[in-house]
Amino acid sequence: MNVLGRPTRTIWPSPDGAAVEIIDQTRLPHAFVTARLSSLSDAAHAISAMLVRGAPLIGATAVWGMWLALRADASDAALAGAHATLLATRPTAVNLRWALDRVRARVAPLPPARRADAARALAVAVCDEDVALNRAIGKAGLPLLQAIAARRGAGQRVNVLTHCNAGWLATVDVGTATAPIYAAHDAGLPIHVWVDETRPRNQGASLTAWELLNHGVPHTVIADNAGGHLMQHGQVDIVIVGTDRTTAAGDVCNKIGTYLKALAARDNGVPFYAAVPSPSLDWTIRDGVREIPIEERSAREVTHLSGRRADGTIETVGVVPEGSPAANPAFDVTPARLVTGLITERGVAEASATGLRRLFPE
Amino acid sequence: MNVLGRPTRTIWPSPDGAAVEIIDQTRLPHAFVTARLSSLSDAAHAISAMLVRGAPLIGATAVWGMWLALRADASDAALAGAHATLLATRPTAVNLRWALDRVRARVAPLPPARRADAARALAVAVCDEDVALNRAIGKAGLPLLQAIAARRGAGQRVNVLTHCNAGWLATVDVGTATAPIYAAHDAGLPIHVWVDETRPRNQGASLTAWELLNHGVPHTVIADNAGGHLMQHGQVDIVIVGTDRTTAAGDVCNKIGTYLKALAARDNGVPFYAAVPSPSLDWTIRDGVREIPIEERSAREVTHLSGRRADGTIETVGVVPEGSPAANPAFDVTPARLVTGLITERGVAEASATGLRRLFPE
Repeated sequence: MNVLGRPTRTIWPSPDGAAVEIIDQTRLPHAFVTARLSSLSDAAHAISAMLVRGAPLIGATAVWGMWLALRADASDAALAGAHATLLATRPTAVNLRWALDRVRARVAPLPPARRADAARALAVAVCDEDVALNRAIGKAGLPLLQAIAARRGAGQRVNVLTHCNAGWLATVDVGTATAPIYAAHDAGLPIHVWVDETRPRNQGASLTAWELLNHGVPHTVIADNAGGHLMQHGQVDIVIVGTDRTTAAGDVCNKIGTYLKALAARDNGVPFYAAVPSPSLDWTIRDGVREIPIEERSAREVTHLSGRRADGTIETVGVVPEGSPAANPAFDVTPARLVTGLITERGVAEASATGLRRLFPE
Repeated sequence: MNVLGRPTRTIWPSPDGAAVEIIDQTRLPHAFVTARLSSLSDAAHAISAMLVRGAPLIGATAVWGMWLALRADASDAALAGAHATLLATRPTAVNLRWALDRVRARVAPLPPARRADAARALAVAVCDEDVALNRAIGKAGLPLLQAIAARRGAGQRVNVLTHCNAGWLATVDVGTATAPIYAAHDAGLPIHVWVDETRPRNQGASLTAWELLNHGVPHTVIADNAGGHLMQHGQVDIVIVGTDRTTAAGDVCNKIGTYLKALAARDNGVPFYAAVPSPSLDWTIRDGVREIPIEERSAREVTHLSGRRADGTIETVGVVPEGSPAANPAFDVTPARLVTGLITERGVAEASATGLRRLFPE
């Protein structure tokens, strides 16, 4: 999407063809800085230090990292070593293993001299596939927003609420939950987005707000506490969130706090959708609340946070008394009964085993 | 309650009898600093600059401020001036006007020479009344926690979730939502409190956590997003919140985000109570969602926040991209249908017109 008026992706081959470039997302929203990845270790560091984040982007970066590794040494040993190095960067990311296994399967049968080029071609393809997938989600979700706009009438803005960042910064481009939003905005609908701050890591306030600001989509940042009140007063027409993992029965695991917004949506008759690219569907489980283990992250993410001082420098401050403990569950599960629909690349599915099987019979 | 092991109130006469002392709450939770109020202007500044906050404490400070004013000048003109000066400090605080009118009615009929002493006696009485009221709420709520403890069995902690600060720092002592918690803790029940951070002003993370830490009550600070997940997993036995205004039908207006916790409590069969001192009951309205105007506060409370740097100094940082707007509704309304009960100084009422009238027939 646009940054400083120019179409931009989160990862792209450098103009000189010798490296890969990324947006250093650790600097957002306070500075737009790109980084150049020239080696396997650069790519591994970009993932582990979270210069890139979001499952699709992590996967894409890993494939590019395999190219960088094989360009330097395409031996069997180097291939195995690069796979292991990149896999160790974020141990729990499912996309990461999937992407790395895919490169290995593609290049291992080839003679070493042809491996780097094959990895590079796959990296280009993986990125384009991600964008196409997200555009398909946008196309599937667009009619939901068009219907609201038609119902509200000319000049009335369509208010979407989203939580966390399931935006283009988490993918190669377009994003998942944001895909229908960008599609609607680019089609001229009067979209306005309520951006949940998304404590404790503030991905909404920092990343989603930055995305929307740069692409020119009207938006307003709110505390995570505010969404229920806005829904009570008719200020939210639809909720669209992303998902880290959705079960075969339609339970949606997403950033902590999503469940609370789904409850408020249900209580106020506001439709609640999750944008679900099919790779995030987990067909092996059904009951998300019982079966999905929830990552407990560092208490320091709750007790401390970083922001921009008046002079533009970044400072980390503590916001909890020294001595008070904190807990930090990172995700929650929204039961399918609260989900109006799942926006997939094949269309909108009912949030149920039947609904999902209808779109994904294979 | 205890600070550094010593029973402490939020406001008290100075040992030399010549002034009033308060906790400077703008310095919490990072520093425990007291301030001395020696004049009307000291008292007015303490209220307007929020060295003291919370409706009951504002009221008490205003009465002490009248004493300070009348001590210097007890004329009719000075009495009227002090009333006007203190009333202007926080224009929307209902308790403030009520407290000031009460002093004026008490002292105006007296000869000037007796006015200061009468105001001082009233200030002492107002403070003691507030503490007695809160202790009565604690006594009324204690059986709810005792019943949970009995059901859970020996050694099992009783998990209370609270939102914002309806603690002793908002009152003269004991607090409202915290009153049953302190009563239970002091009675030896194994209480543990989940403290919602309470964005955007962080009263939970800064004030409630500080209170509980100092009184020795086990607690854990969580992001406002986390409560629903904890309830889904049986980690919350009861929710107790405060209220700024409760309608005759039992709708509870409280800090923004309270409604989301009430929805999660209902969805998970967790009892949800509000601690409601009778002065916060508004008998003139019934439908809180429609009838209570919600204050929209400065966007800067969302976009910026203050915390403690590693060197102990306080810094304000921005957490939203420059250019992204923010909205900041300060309160929301939890409909009575989601409220298990209202803990008043006369006992626990059903959250309904009938339930409230039964306890408050007058």
